[in-house]
Amino acid sequence: MPQGRRVTVRLRCELPVTSVTLKYVHIGEIETVSAAEIAAPPAAAGEGRWFEAELPLAGQRVRYAWQLDLEGDHLNFTHLGLHHSRRGFRGWFQYLPGHVAPEWAWSGVFYQIFPDRFRNGDPGNDVQTGEYVYNGRPVEHVEWNTPVDAHNDIHGHYGGDLNGVTQALPYLQRLGITGLWLTPVFTSPSNHRYDITDYRAVDPHLGGEAAWDELVREADAAGIRIVLDGVFNHTGDENALFRAALASEGAPERELFTWRAAGPEGGLNYHAFMDVPTLPKIDYGSPAAVAEFLNGERSVVRHWLRRGAAGWRLDVAHMIGSGGTDDDNLPLHRALKAAAREERPDAYVFGERFFDPEHALGGQGEDGAMNYHGFGLPVMQWVSGGTHFGAPSRLDGHELVDILHDAYHALAPQVALSMFNLLESHDIGRALFRVGGDRTRFLAAFTLLMGYAGVPCTYYGTEVGVTQSRAGNMPWCREPMPWDEEAWDRELLERVRALIGVRRSAHALHRGHLQFLHAEADAVAYLREFTHADGRTERAAVVASRRAGAHAVTLTLPDGEWRDALSGEVLGGEELGGEVTLDAAGGRILLQG
Amino acid sequence: MPQGRRVTVRLRCELPVTSVTLKYVHIGEIETVSAAEIAAPPAAAGEGRWFEAELPLAGQRVRYAWQLDLEGDHLNFTHLGLHHSRRGFRGWFQYLPGHVAPEWAWSGVFYQIFPDRFRNGDPGNDVQTGEYVYNGRPVEHVEWNTPVDAHNDIHGHYGGDLNGVTQALPYLQRLGITGLWLTPVFTSPSNHRYDITDYRAVDPHLGGEAAWDELVREADAAGIRIVLDGVFNHTGDENALFRAALASEGAPERELFTWRAAGPEGGLNYHAFMDVPTLPKIDYGSPAAVAEFLNGERSVVRHWLRRGAAGWRLDVAHMIGSGGTDDDNLPLHRALKAAAREERPDAYVFGERFFDPEHALGGQGEDGAMNYHGFGLPVMQWVSGGTHFGAPSRLDGHELVDILHDAYHALAPQVALSMFNLLESHDIGRALFRVGGDRTRFLAAFTLLMGYAGVPCTYYGTEVGVTQSRAGNMPWCREPMPWDEEAWDRELLERVRALIGVRRSAHALHRGHLQFLHAEADAVAYLREFTHADGRTERAAVVASRRAGAHAVTLTLPDGEWRDALSGEVLGGEELGGEVTLDAAGGRILLQG
Repeated sequence: MPQGRRVTVRLRCELPVTSVTLKYVHIGEIETVSAAEIAAPPAAAGEGRWFEAELPLAGQRVRYAWQLDLEGDHLNFTHLGLHHSRRGFRGWFQYLPGHVAPEWAWSGVFYQIFPDRFRNGDPGNDVQTGEYVYNGRPVEHVEWNTPVDAHNDIHGHYGGDLNGVTQALPYLQRLGITGLWLTPVFTSPSNHRYDITDYRAVDPHLGGEAAWDELVREADAAGIRIVLDGVFNHTGDENALFRAALASEGAPERELFTWRAAGPEGGLNYHAFMDVPTLPKIDYGSPAAVAEFLNGERSVVRHWLRRGAAGWRLDVAHMIGSGGTDDDNLPLHRALKAAAREERPDAYVFGERFFDPEHALGGQGEDGAMNYHGFGLPVMQWVSGGTHFGAPSRLDGHELVDILHDAYHALAPQVALSMFNLLESHDIGRALFRVGGDRTRFLAAFTLLMGYAGVPCTYYGTEVGVTQSRAGNMPWCREPMPWDEEAWDRELLERVRALIGVRRSAHALHRGHLQFLHAEADAVAYLREFTHADGRTERAAVVASRRAGAHAVTLTLPDGEWRDALSGEVLGGEELGGEVTLDAAGGRILLQG
Repeated sequence: MPQGRRVTVRLRCELPVTSVTLKYVHIGEIETVSAAEIAAPPAAAGEGRWFEAELPLAGQRVRYAWQLDLEGDHLNFTHLGLHHSRRGFRGWFQYLPGHVAPEWAWSGVFYQIFPDRFRNGDPGNDVQTGEYVYNGRPVEHVEWNTPVDAHNDIHGHYGGDLNGVTQALPYLQRLGITGLWLTPVFTSPSNHRYDITDYRAVDPHLGGEAAWDELVREADAAGIRIVLDGVFNHTGDENALFRAALASEGAPERELFTWRAAGPEGGLNYHAFMDVPTLPKIDYGSPAAVAEFLNGERSVVRHWLRRGAAGWRLDVAHMIGSGGTDDDNLPLHRALKAAAREERPDAYVFGERFFDPEHALGGQGEDGAMNYHGFGLPVMQWVSGGTHFGAPSRLDGHELVDILHDAYHALAPQVALSMFNLLESHDIGRALFRVGGDRTRFLAAFTLLMGYAGVPCTYYGTEVGVTQSRAGNMPWCREPMPWDEEAWDRELLERVRALIGVRRSAHALHRGHLQFLHAEADAVAYLREFTHADGRTERAAVVASRRAGAHAVTLTLPDGEWRDALSGEVLGGEELGGEVTLDAAGGRILLQG
């Protein structure tokens, strides 16, 4: 859509309207402009009259709705549907004037790598048992393919490194991957590296600067971009800034952290992430902290974009703030994003916001957020019958569609398409494990992921069947990637590869809006639809069942020829559409146009 | 509810729960605390087990929800109801820690007076025809009881004054009124006085300072408080500040307004309300403007609270801002409210926010807003079959309940109870006119108003049947109040007086929460319920039909004895409750406890 002072919006309408008005919010008032009836665009198909109006753009977000006048009645059309009342503004459509989205990410597929567990490319840089002491205990080297255990939760290092990622690029490219999200790669004592000692150094145990530079170069050649993990809420307690601050109350570094009385029971005298002593919280009330990490000329954010990163995933983005709290959270994210975009105009910046992120996604801060709330958690709850904490749940398809719909429509379309969708991660249980290893049920969820609005991300190893040795979230979801192909689920790998291919090739999946088609207890379906300026429409329909066996589902599809995205099979004749019954087990994607 | 670091919240639950957890949002995270089962409070009636938990208070708004664990399932309880998903935070219950609400207003009933049209207490101060010229045309004196006409829209002065309001206090007191909202009373050239020349002088044509002081004194003795109309978005163009600013580009007053290039067609060189030249917009980018009007030691806001006003209604509150826009709107309202509360700790401050006000009502700025969006407009649309602009509408009772529910739950309870509810005003068509003068249909709406959550306000003259000479909004809704009692609809007056009495006497209507009981096309019903700490519950049920004749409606009421609030008649026997069928024509209020 054009950026400027106005944008043209169009409506196709099958109701017997006498007139159509575009309504929009301007300085708190509802303003109106008449819509003109226009000829249907040349390539438009289907019934209905077309209307067009110019939406004036001002401010950071424009809310709009349509009023449809009928004989003796009128209706308001918002994302909530057709209503006789004008509804609250939250239900109105929204557009972000001047917003620049990282559109390259929309057509890609991401792959999350936890570097210590993906591939050991250089055994010479491995952490050795007893090499150093972390939090009072020596670290340990763990043999590859040893199941994760509680003892080595934090201290066990498997030896994965960036050299290994580089070696695996052909594998990833063949899988169809176009983006990597690496959990932290900077020098840190733990195996997860969320306790960063040096933000400007790649951990020598991951191969150091040379391995990073090689990875960036080779990934670029393979058409793969790399998003780094920015841990800007807290440092590790071995970080030089924190050591200096701790050493002297007069140190200039003192202001970078948040100090408090230790309390009668002798607790910490500084704020820390979840009160974990090794993770002191950064105080962005300090301009020096803002400059050092976020937007100074040499900030960490800028440094790695200059070094070849394509964007940032922001760890616990919702916690970042001043004075030991999340105060100033949104302004800080705006500052971070602005600095990132100065360095790289298409940088993709998204927050880990594990909970409802609506308030943070007005378009000025992060491009999007990890979509736990509005996609991954409810989808996995539905397909597995429980939450990631193991609480049983009878969430059915009707409620699933309800929560997905609400979360999707809370966002402007440009933001909804930039959400980072996932089923699983290094923090929560693996999807395959949560469905009891049932490939059919897993594929239902994975199909929903590949078809959904937003950028899909799959977690390392899932494509070959990596699961868990026991129930729970982290660390059980961090098993090492098997490289003995005999251990792979090859059928799963082929299906995952094929679904990634569908995702990458279907324009409607990159930019189409989202509409729910169907819900029953065990099945849901949605439509993705993108209409070009000439009226030509591309569509994808995605349906999935949570049953392990065959499940015949009847959908009502828009008219036209539909083909199965994987088999290429055409459903019915030329004039198909309307009611279609198909087996939804394992998920299906249908394409049109 | 207690203010402090924690608040005790309780749940009565009839489901077979195995455990109950209170969830709340803290620094962007969901935290949990187990709820303990407690004995039912001594005066509690009805089924169910009781649970209690301590909700920690931090920040300006705490969001919370309940998790109910069941055998093989769990549910989330939010204001959206029971769901298997945790829903977005907007659906969670909310509490405002430390918020001070103007609770005196909750138990009162307001009456809106447009001073020029209510009562002429002193013909000696009347505006005389030709006395002065306003906007190029001489003003005119209009005889009382002359219907409003277009010619005298702005220039016709009927002679109403504050002396008249004082004279009418016994009438208002007998009607049961406890609060007055006066549209502007400061020196201004037009009959509506929204173009203020001197913010610190009562218009001599309304009786001047002496009349104000007498009114405050006598109203206080009659138990009636006065809320003034604060026009802080714009001044009148005869205001001395604006004249000085206009006279010289070097004037210190220049910064109080927003200047711009006049444009090629020679438009205004200053921002004005709706581009009306007589209403120059104040620029709150100027600290001097903020001090002069809002929060300086001698600000207009402070001045009139010191002179006896009980609060402020803020004209076009959503427009106030910096640089010709609404920028800084919310911080400005926070500053205004803080200053008002310093002067009068229980000052009631509410904004005219004609459209969805949710974003402005987080508790830091206005106490509430004029409830056009969430009450008055949809109720009148439903009962009259059209909008205030005359657009026909088939809005039915189901949709009415849907929009009322959504708007009510968008607000914290302390704010919802401080909303200023109304059916009509000096800006939109009179309610009686919009229902074709049908008293039964009007009373249905008026009954909904008197029973609803928030502070009810009735518009002068409605109680005796004042209507309009022709269709439309202002000025047609500004007919003079008839004081010849022969012209009054005495039956209507008695019914209005009785309903006001019910409102004032029923505690459940002052503080009770709101729950919708019933909806059908032509009837709606809701429940107000307040539970004391000892478990004793007071309830009111309100039902209304939009039909002009009898309409039997069946409701399912909580158990216990219910009595008709007006007739005192007890419905059924001691153990009544469950299904009740009654005639909802004209509205009914039932009470229990």
